[in-house]
Parts: sequence; C-alpha cells; structure tokens
Amino acid sequence: MTEDNVGLIGLGAMGRPMAAHLLRAARERGGELWVHSRRRASAEELVAAGARWAATPAELAGRCGVVVSMVQDLPQVAEVLDGDGGLLAGLSAPAVLVVASTSSPDGVRALADDVARRSAGRLAVVDAPVSGGVEGAAEGTLSIMVGGAPADVARALPWLGAMGTAVHLGPIGAGQVAKACNQLIVAATTVALGEASVIAERSGLDLARLLDLLGGGYAGSRLLEVKKSRLVAHDYTPAAPAKFMVKDLGFAADEARRTGVAVRQLPVLQEVFADITARGLGDLDTAVVQRDLEDRSA
Amino acid sequence: MTEDNVGLIGLGAMGRPMAAHLLRAARERGGELWVHSRRRASAEELVAAGARWAATPAELAGRCGVVVSMVQDLPQVAEVLDGDGGLLAGLSAPAVLVVASTSSPDGVRALADDVARRSAGRLAVVDAPVSGGVEGAAEGTLSIMVGGAPADVARALPWLGAMGTAVHLGPIGAGQVAKACNQLIVAATTVALGEASVIAERSGLDLARLLDLLGGGYAGSRLLEVKKSRLVAHDYTPAAPAKFMVKDLGFAADEARRTGVAVRQLPVLQEVFADITARGLGDLDTAVVQRDLEDRSA
Repeated sequence: MTEDNVGLIGLGAMGRPMAAHLLRAARERGGELWVHSRRRASAEELVAAGARWAATPAELAGRCGVVVSMVQDLPQVAEVLDGDGGLLAGLSAPAVLVVASTSSPDGVRALADDVARRSAGRLAVVDAPVSGGVEGAAEGTLSIMVGGAPADVARALPWLGAMGTAVHLGPIGAGQVAKACNQLIVAATTVALGEASVIAERSGLDLARLLDLLGGGYAGSRLLEVKKSRLVAHDYTPAAPAKFMVKDLGFAADEARRTGVAVRQLPVLQEVFADITARGLGDLDTAVVQRDLEDRSA
Repeated sequence: MTEDNVGLIGLGAMGRPMAAHLLRAARERGGELWVHSRRRASAEELVAAGARWAATPAELAGRCGVVVSMVQDLPQVAEVLDGDGGLLAGLSAPAVLVVASTSSPDGVRALADDVARRSAGRLAVVDAPVSGGVEGAAEGTLSIMVGGAPADVARALPWLGAMGTAVHLGPIGAGQVAKACNQLIVAATTVALGEASVIAERSGLDLARLLDLLGGGYAGSRLLEVKKSRLVAHDYTPAAPAKFMVKDLGFAADEARRTGVAVRQLPVLQEVFADITARGLGDLDTAVVQRDLEDRSA
C-alpha cells in the first residue's frame, strides 16, 4: 500500500542521512523507502541497506503516498515535477509532496497553487524546511518547521517525525516563515555578539572570561555557546557560511514586506551580511561579523 | 581588623538582599557587616540580624577594608564620598570602594581618578555592576562584572563572591563595559524576537508552537525562554522596564565611540528603545518591542 511507502528525492549531504531515518521508519510500518537522485551513485549505500531505487520521479510517485524533496531550491523542485519522468506524470493516487528545501514563503505558496492546478488536486504541497544541519540530519534531531493544510500535514508528520522534531505551525508557507524567523533571531544575536566582542577587546577586557560570564545570565544563548571559542580565537573556519544569511534574511524581508511589518533591525542585518559577502568573506563562518567590524573600525 | 569587616551603602531593593549575603560572609570570617543608607528604617531588619549601623559613610569607612556602594548612580556615589560625614573624610587605612551601580565606563574611570587624587591613593575604586535582578540578589546568584587594578580587585572578590559569580574582566571600567555588552546582546535578541513574532503572527503561524520549536535550536536563548509567554500573551507587565535600555545602550554607544568601533546594529537598538520610551511605553517590559512594532506597521 502506498501509504506505508515514502519517497525521498535529492541525496546530497542532508538527504542521505535523512533517508536513513526514513528507511527505518518505513520498515517499522512494513513499507518501503523509494529514493531518486540526479546521480545513481548517491543512492548506492542506501540501496545496499534496503532502499529501493526509482529511475525517475514519476516511477517513485506511483508508489509513495508521501514524497520528501530535499533538493537545493525551488527551480530544482520544478525539475523534479515536470516532464515525462516528472513527479506529476507519475501520480497514481492523491499524494503529498514535502518541500524540505529552504525557500521564500511566497515561492512555496505559488508552487503549491501551481501543483494543485496542474495535478487537478491530486498532489498537495507541504513545506517543511529544517534546521540543525548535517549533524542534526545524521542524529535524527532536526527541527522541522511545517506549513500546509491539516489533512496533508497529517499524512506527512509521521515521516517527518522520524527525522527530528516536526511541528505544524500554520498554512502553506508557514514552515518557510518559521525558518526565516529563526534566521532573523540567529543573525541578530550573531551581530550583537560581534559588536560586543569588538568593543570589549578594544576596552581591554578578557573576552573569554566575559563570554563565559555573559553565557550564565540573560545574554546566554545556544549561539553564544557555539560561537564563543571562534570569537575568542578570531577563527572563522566555516560551520555556517555567512553568505547563506543573505538569502535567508531576504526571505524574512520579503515576508515582512508582504505582511506590512515595519521592521527596523532586519534591514541592518541584511546590510551587514550583504557587505560581508561583497567583501569576499561570505564563505567564512557567520562569526566573521567580528572581523568585518574590526576592519571597518578606526 | 578592618579586612574582616565589609561595608554596604544603599539599602534599596537590590542592596538589602545583597547585604544579607555579606552579613553571612562577614560572620564566616569573624568580622562584621556595617551598613548605611539614607533612611535608617531600611536597615532595621539587617541590624536585627546582626549588622552594625553606621550613622554616616565616614563612620563606616573607618571600620571596613572594603565598602560596596549600591546606590542609584554616580551622582549618588559622589554624595556618599563628599562632605563632613563622607567616606573620604573617614578613611583610617587604605580601603577599596566597590561601585556596584551601573554607570558609564568613562564615568567610573573619572570617579576612580578623582578619588585616588583626593584620598592621596588611600581609597581605590573597583567597578562591579551586577546582572540578575532582585531575584538574583536574593538567591546570591548575581553575575558580577568586575573592573579594577588586580590588588584592589583581590581585596573585593571574596566579598563579591558571596553575592554571586564575580569575575575580574579588566582594568577600571571593565565591569561597566561588560554590563553594556550584556545589554547590547539582550536588546538585540529582544528586538529580533519582537520582529520575528509580529511577522509570524501576521503570516498565520501559531506563535506559541513556533517559539517552543525555535527554543530547541540555534535561536534558543535564556531570553527566549523568559519572554516567550509574554510574547504569546502580548503581556508587557514590567519585569525589565524598557526605558532602562535607553541608558544602558547609551553607555555601550559611548564606549563604542571612545574605542572607535563602527557599530551598526547598536544605533538601531537605541532608536527602538528611545522611541518606545518617547511613546510613553517605557515603564512596560522590554517585550513591548512587539506592541511597538505592531503599532508602527500597516
């Protein structure tokens, strides 16, 4: 039965470990995991472990009630959907497409409308961007932010729950809005840590001691813990490349504009990360806000 | 011996619970806690518990190696120091004055210079602003940010450690710089939480679920935990009044200017809290950034 099968399209650095958790969940239900990727080689390990290879998205579509798309962006989702071997060509029963990539909220809403029209309502879209990185994907501890109609989300949630904590937050696009909000908070805290660290060092403070102390009080955050050693060592080896913030904060700004929210901090954060990227520092870790500020200061 | 005695001047909402911890620490050393305040009545409970009342700062100065000043601001510290009954008039042996109020870094540096000159080096100043509020003062879990010369700080630290976690961060003024950095990070995170919550609600997201989910990831912070229920309920009953941010962020901006740091986020944070205060919302909790943004939005 297709409801006990799940599909995953896109076997990159995130998709492969996510697939491993879906495979386990499918087995527990007595079903199968079907996978497809641009390169067959990406699937070898999974197929050896018991996953089934689909030569095209169409082949996969006919066998799975829920298909997770972990490709890079919405244009790649369009490639998955369209053409002779595309997902839309292969639908046998009503299915749910879970878009796990990060995109603009409006982009995924438009996609959902387009897909509903072209499939005559037989393919519904749920958006479910993730946070937690490759490590979270491997450990099955991703934060998964879900948007969509309740009935569609209800079909997707058991599968998403196998890969981390999945929470239904609102209508289609809500997952992307949540991811954008996450990035806004992360960016604001990162820039504040950068500004504070440069002021503190120039004033003769011991930065390691300061960040240890601040971490125990109201300024304490997961981000402070993660960035502390980088800020102290001025080490910007990339964990979270700064340039990705430009895209993510852009999605947040789009949504603020659409909803008429007169944000004031967000534009500054966009400016900071755009400048860093324009200076050629975008491949470095977001902690590079510290170095950028040092370079700009007298 | 005066080194086993400690003095505390200023028995307000913070000073009284701090005094209780100093009293315990003095007893453990076989010494005494001497207290002084504008109103004798504020000391009654402490005196009943064994603290000694000093009629003037001068009387207290002659008996204690370390005197903690927990008055409101630097002008009040000046009142404590000056005149016939002032601290400077009563010095018998070299002592350390711990300025625990929040002030500008430059203000406390100037005070230290002035005091050193007027006392011919017999009274040294250490700055030690605190974070953690009345609750932290009561529980003895304040974060105490300490600046000053190593020998002076060494005399003060055992007493400060009785009231929380005290860390020596750098030269005189370093405590105030640390407090300003703390407030910068707190303000940035608060404003980001406000912007994110307004965007999310206008986009139809369930804010309580969103904040729960974000709290488990990279956007997680002590502040998110503390402000979550307020943001969800749009409840701005004051815990941390917004207007105090104006002063604190001003100190951070002064120090950024002095050290030539070209901050970009800090001026926006100053603007946000200045506008909130100008609108008459400054007595409400800092979570009022949410309401302010709603009011400004279309």
